[in-house]
Amino acid sequence: MDKVRVIEVKQSVFADNNAEADRVRRQLKADKTFLLNLMSSPGAGKTTTLVRTISDLKNDLRIGIMEADIDSTVDAETIAAAGAKSIQIHTGGMCHLDAGMTEQGLREIGAENFDLVVLENVGNLVCPAEFDTGASKNVAILSVPEGHDKPLKYPLMFEICHALIINKIDVLPYFDFDMEKVVEYAHMRNPELAIFPVSAKTGEGFEAWENWLRQQTAEWNGE
Amino acid sequence: MDKVRVIEVKQSVFADNNAEADRVRRQLKADKTFLLNLMSSPGAGKTTTLVRTISDLKNDLRIGIMEADIDSTVDAETIAAAGAKSIQIHTGGMCHLDAGMTEQGLREIGAENFDLVVLENVGNLVCPAEFDTGASKNVAILSVPEGHDKPLKYPLMFEICHALIINKIDVLPYFDFDMEKVVEYAHMRNPELAIFPVSAKTGEGFEAWENWLRQQTAEWNGE
Repeated sequence: MDKVRVIEVKQSVFADNNAEADRVRRQLKADKTFLLNLMSSPGAGKTTTLVRTISDLKNDLRIGIMEADIDSTVDAETIAAAGAKSIQIHTGGMCHLDAGMTEQGLREIGAENFDLVVLENVGNLVCPAEFDTGASKNVAILSVPEGHDKPLKYPLMFEICHALIINKIDVLPYFDFDMEKVVEYAHMRNPELAIFPVSAKTGEGFEAWENWLRQQTAEWNGE
Repeated sequence: MDKVRVIEVKQSVFADNNAEADRVRRQLKADKTFLLNLMSSPGAGKTTTLVRTISDLKNDLRIGIMEADIDSTVDAETIAAAGAKSIQIHTGGMCHLDAGMTEQGLREIGAENFDLVVLENVGNLVCPAEFDTGASKNVAILSVPEGHDKPLKYPLMFEICHALIINKIDVLPYFDFDMEKVVEYAHMRNPELAIFPVSAKTGEGFEAWENWLRQQTAEWNGE
């Protein structure tokens, strides 16, 4: 396996993260690069979801992946094996990425060469929601084993996302997970939220999710 | 159901959290109260584990539970229904508890009246590990659906814990989870870590976990 490129990003020096995020977004718009900020708890299936999405879309879109983790390169290695350009971002212990850190990653991967760049944020349902990375859209993954009450407990994540992937629906029979309730709670936080129940393991539900992603990318890139 | 008492805690004014944590710990020792700081990702099963633990130990120990969440009171209601004294701590958006916030909770619940107080920290595998709460011992829960690679990605949590509960072993057949690997990775971070594979749903493995907790509580309380 190719050696994964690892970059160590430093916490942003910008006092105003929102202004810096808007600057990142304007540059992405000018470059015709859609940046997806993908967030979830640890182990909800961000990387597995990406591997399948890459496999389905890589003939239509030039895709780059930035894997953010506190430590290790396991995810970037998995993504590289799936056939997408990837870099590993190490956050030096930080629990989230801000716009300045994201910009360091975008520069490193050469964002202008891609139609779609995905930032796989640090596994954390709390802090990443507080920092605008400059992404075109925010997407969260909630997995069935985590339970349907999460929108009640972690409101901000559901408020700031444009789409919610509900992953691991293949194990629904083994958990007390109420799909109607999770949709109700999530829409209570954010009535506009697009919701996609999927199984990254079996591929169930991926067509709707990938159509959404394709359409968002095309709109952003002005196609 | 009884109405749950909710307290809104403020971020600590203490510049030196470690010194404040030591102060909290000395007071707990003097009061003969063992404080367990229970941490995990969202949905790993902290509350379900506590409900079963309370049910098994409540005749032997006076147990109080402090449920910390950014929002909602669902966990404190569940705990109250299980028959333990509980309060709900709201962190005002904060992703963790520090020693000062923990102390506000201890005062509110009347910690000196309990043999064992459990702080159910905010669901987050990153930030709570960075702040000493003043607890007697730290315990993390990792659940099978999250995957066995978590000690590689979230090192600090595994380094600062005294015990690791591996929950949801009843669904092992449905996930690619390697028990040998997770034990190896966790001990790589912390060779002293006591590890308890359990199912909070079926009760499997609880005897070993509860014996550990009983023994730690007795040692701390000088019995």
